[in-house]
Amino acid sequence: MDILLKEILEINSVSSDESRMASFLLDLILKRRSSWKVSPQIYSGEEFHDNILLVFGNPKTAAFAHMDTVGFSVRYENQLVPIGGPEIGDGAWLQGTDLVGPIRCKAHEKDGNVFHDFPRGIQRGTMLSFEQQIKADNEFIEAAYLDNRLGMYAMIRLCETLTDGIIVFSTYEEHGGGSMPFLTRFIFENWGIRQALVADVTWITEGVHFNKGAVISMRDSFIPRKKFLDSILELAEASGVPYQLEVEAYGGSDGREIQMSPYPVDWCFIGVAEENPHTPQEKASLKDVEDLIKLYQYLMRNL
Amino acid sequence: MDILLKEILEINSVSSDESRMASFLLDLILKRRSSWKVSPQIYSGEEFHDNILLVFGNPKTAAFAHMDTVGFSVRYENQLVPIGGPEIGDGAWLQGTDLVGPIRCKAHEKDGNVFHDFPRGIQRGTMLSFEQQIKADNEFIEAAYLDNRLGMYAMIRLCETLTDGIIVFSTYEEHGGGSMPFLTRFIFENWGIRQALVADVTWITEGVHFNKGAVISMRDSFIPRKKFLDSILELAEASGVPYQLEVEAYGGSDGREIQMSPYPVDWCFIGVAEENPHTPQEKASLKDVEDLIKLYQYLMRNL
Amino acid sequence: MDILLKEILEINSVSSDESRMASFLLDLILKRRSSWKVSPQIYSGEEFHDNILLVFGNPKTAAFAHMDTVGFSVRYENQLVPIGGPEIGDGAWLQGTDLVGPIRCKAHEKDGNVFHDFPRGIQRGTMLSFEQQIKADNEFIEAAYLDNRLGMYAMIRLCETLTDGIIVFSTYEEHGGGSMPFLTRFIFENWGIRQALVADVTWITEGVHFNKGAVISMRDSFIPRKKFLDSILELAEASGVPYQLEVEAYGGSDGREIQMSPYPVDWCFIGVAEENPHTPQEKASLKDVEDLIKLYQYLMRNL
Repeated sequence: MDILLKEILEINSVSSDESRMASFLLDLILKRRSSWKVSPQIYSGEEFHDNILLVFGNPKTAAFAHMDTVGFSVRYENQLVPIGGPEIGDGAWLQGTDLVGPIRCKAHEKDGNVFHDFPRGIQRGTMLSFEQQIKADNEFIEAAYLDNRLGMYAMIRLCETLTDGIIVFSTYEEHGGGSMPFLTRFIFENWGIRQALVADVTWITEGVHFNKGAVISMRDSFIPRKKFLDSILELAEASGVPYQLEVEAYGGSDGREIQMSPYPVDWCFIGVAEENPHTPQEKASLKDVEDLIKLYQYLMRNL
Repeated sequence: MDILLKEILEINSVSSDESRMASFLLDLILKRRSSWKVSPQIYSGEEFHDNILLVFGNPKTAAFAHMDTVGFSVRYENQLVPIGGPEIGDGAWLQGTDLVGPIRCKAHEKDGNVFHDFPRGIQRGTMLSFEQQIKADNEFIEAAYLDNRLGMYAMIRLCETLTDGIIVFSTYEEHGGGSMPFLTRFIFENWGIRQALVADVTWITEGVHFNKGAVISMRDSFIPRKKFLDSILELAEASGVPYQLEVEAYGGSDGREIQMSPYPVDWCFIGVAEENPHTPQEKASLKDVEDLIKLYQYLMRNL
Repeated sequence: MDILLKEILEINSVSSDESRMASFLLDLILKRRSSWKVSPQIYSGEEFHDNILLVFGNPKTAAFAHMDTVGFSVRYENQLVPIGGPEIGDGAWLQGTDLVGPIRCKAHEKDGNVFHDFPRGIQRGTMLSFEQQIKADNEFIEAAYLDNRLGMYAMIRLCETLTDGIIVFSTYEEHGGGSMPFLTRFIFENWGIRQALVADVTWITEGVHFNKGAVISMRDSFIPRKKFLDSILELAEASGVPYQLEVEAYGGSDGREIQMSPYPVDWCFIGVAEENPHTPQEKASLKDVEDLIKLYQYLMRNL
C-alpha cells in the first residue's frame, strides 16, 4: 500500500472541519508539484473555505474528490448527533479532542439515539470520528474513511501525469453539501468548464463487484445527461481499462450539486466500490483503485 | 385532435434523455416560425443541454413547459428503477431500445420493487417508458405523457401569436430538476426577466374539475408571492377566459427552482388538470387546453 | 415591554405575504434612522420582493432576521393547508381577511387534516394565521409570532448603534425559503460580504434554558464551518455577554441557504430560545433578548 494513502487515512476531517486535511494536502502539493508533468496553479485558503483547486494547462474537464468524512457532534448528556450517515453497528470506537484533552470512547445506540461512554463530559460541539485501523494486503484494504480517501488518493496520483484539467478537493460532501455550488461557479466563470467527473466511493451490490474495475455510475438518486454519459462510455470502452456499470435508485454525490447549479455543466460519477460504507471497516480492492486512476488518466485526456 | 399534439405524444423523452424531443421541436420551430406573427430568436444546442428558448420581441415574462416524462432505468436482474414517479398499477406495457434492438415488455411490482418480463436481458441503464396509446374524441384525450405534452402543445400554439415574451422548453422536471437554475439565470441576466409562468399538468381533485378552464395554482408545496398572484388573478378575471383556482399542500413544478434561484423572479403555475397522472392513461379535457392557450395569450400581453 | 415589539407582534405576515410587514418596517426605518448613530442606505421595494436591506458604513458582516410567520392557506371544503409548520394542539384561534370581510375561526385537526369552523365559506387561497394574544411581565413574554419578531426586534435595536454592517429582513423562511439565495448574491456581489449571522428563534431543550443568554448554535440540520464558529466563540467569550451553546440534529434557518449558495459566505445562527414554537403561545425570556442585542453589538463590531 502506498504510504501516501496511509497518511491521508490518518487525518481527521469530519464535514465542516476539513482544515487539517486541507493543510496536509497543500503541503503535499507544494512539495510534489515540481515533479509532476505540469505544475498546476493552486487556489486555496480562506477565500476558498478549505477547498483546494488545482488548474493544469488549458482545462476542459474538472475532477472532484471530497475531503470530508462522516462523524459525530457531541450534544448534551453524553448524546452524539450524526454528521453524515455513520454506521456504528453494535458499537464503534471513536476519537477526537476537546480543550481538556484527547478523547477515546465507544459509541452505542439506545432507542434510536447514539451515546458515548467517555468517563468525563465532552465539550459541546466537539467532533468525534471513527478510530482508524488500517488492514491491507496486496489485494484489499480495510479501514475507516476509504470514503473518500480513495478518491482523493486517485486524484493525487492523477496529478502526476495530468496536462490539462482541474482537480478539486471539496468539503462538506457527507453532510448537507454546500461547497460545490461555489466551486462549480468558480470553474465555470473562470475556465468555462462544462464537464465534471466525480471521484468517490460507492457500494458493492448484486451488480457491482470487487476487482471488476472502476465504477461508472449510470445513475443514483440523480441521473447524468444521457449524451454525456454516452460519450464517457464510448471512451471507457476505447481505453481498455476495466470498468463496470452501476444503476442505483438511491445515494448521491457531489454530482447532485453540479446538476442543480445554474451553469450548464455535465457530470458523471466514476469511482470505486466498497463494502461496509460509513463504518470503521470499509473495504475496497486496490486493483480497482489502480483502474480508477488509469480511467481518469484516459478520460481527462480524451473527453 | 391537432396532429401536432399526436406527433409530440409519440416521442420518447424520459428525463435526462430529451435530445429526440429537442430535435423534433427545433425542426418544427424552424419550419413554422416564418408563419408566426413574430419570428423569435432561438437558443438551443449543446450549450443549452437540450433545453430550447425562444425569445420574442421585448420580453417581460417567460413561460415554461417541460419536455421530459417519467419512465424507468433498467438495473440488474430484470429490476427497474423509477425515473420521476411513474405509476404502473397492476402492470403496464413499457417500450424502449438498447443496442441489441427494440424492447417491449410488461412492468410489474413485487415486494416494493419493479421488474420487467422481457425474455432477454436488457442492457444496464437502458431507459424504458410507457407504451403510447392515444384515445381521443371531441371532448377528452387519454394517453401517456399528457404530462407535459399538453403544456408543450399550448406553448407551441402560443408562439403563433406571441409578440413579446420568452417561451422555454425545459428538461429534467420529472426527476430531480436542475435545468431551471441555468435557464432562470440565463433569462434574468440577458433580458432582466422577473415574471415566470409554468405551463404544466396538475390533478383533478375535489376542487379542480374537467371543463372548468385553465388551472391557476395558488400554491402547491411551494407558494408564489401573493402580490404577483394577485396581479395574475386580476388579469385572469379581466380576460374572460374560464379558469379555476387550485390550493394544494403537495406537488411541485419548475416553479420550485425559480423560487429557489438567486434572482428575484416571480412565478406562478398555470396549467391543465388531468386524471391518472403519471400512468399510461392520463386523461384531460381538450377544452381546458384551449382555455389554457387563451389565458396565456392574454397574460403574456398584459402581465 | 418595548412598544415596538408589541407593534410588530400585531402585524400579519404569513410566508409569501410579507408586504404589510415590509411597509411597516420601511416606515419605521425612515422615521428612526436620523436618530441612529449611522444612517444606512436602504434597499427595498418590488425589485427586492418585500425583503429589506440596510447597509451601514463599510460592511463586513451581515445579520439576517426573517419577517414571515407560519399560518394556513384555505383549501376546499373548509380544509386548511399549513404554511410552514404551525402547531394547533387541540385547536387554535385563527384570523385573516378575504374579499367578503374579516375572518375569525377555530382550527381543529381531524384524521391528519386541519379544518376551520367559520360559518361561511372562505375564499380559496386566503391566508389565516394565529390570533395574537400577548402576555408579558418583566421577565417573560408569551405570544404568537415570537418566531421571528424577536429576531426582527433585536435587529431594529441593533440599528441604533451599528456603524458597519448589513441588516437584512428576509421573507419566506418558514415555508420553502427562496429569498436568501437572491439576498446572499446581492450582498456578496455588491459588498463582498463573507460573514453572516442569523438572528432567529430556537427551542428550549435539556441543554438550552431560559435566562442563560443568547443561543449560539453549533449546528442544527446544517453545520457552520468550524473555523468561523471558533472565531465567534472566542469573541462571545471576550464580550462578557451571557450566551449558551446549542447542538441539534434537526431544524434549520436562513443559514441553510447561505450554506448552499454559490458564494463562500460563512454563517452562524445566534438567537433566542423559546418554548412552544409555532404555537399561539410561544414563550421567551426578555433578558435573553437583551443579551442577544448586546452580543450582536459586540460581534458586528469585532468579527
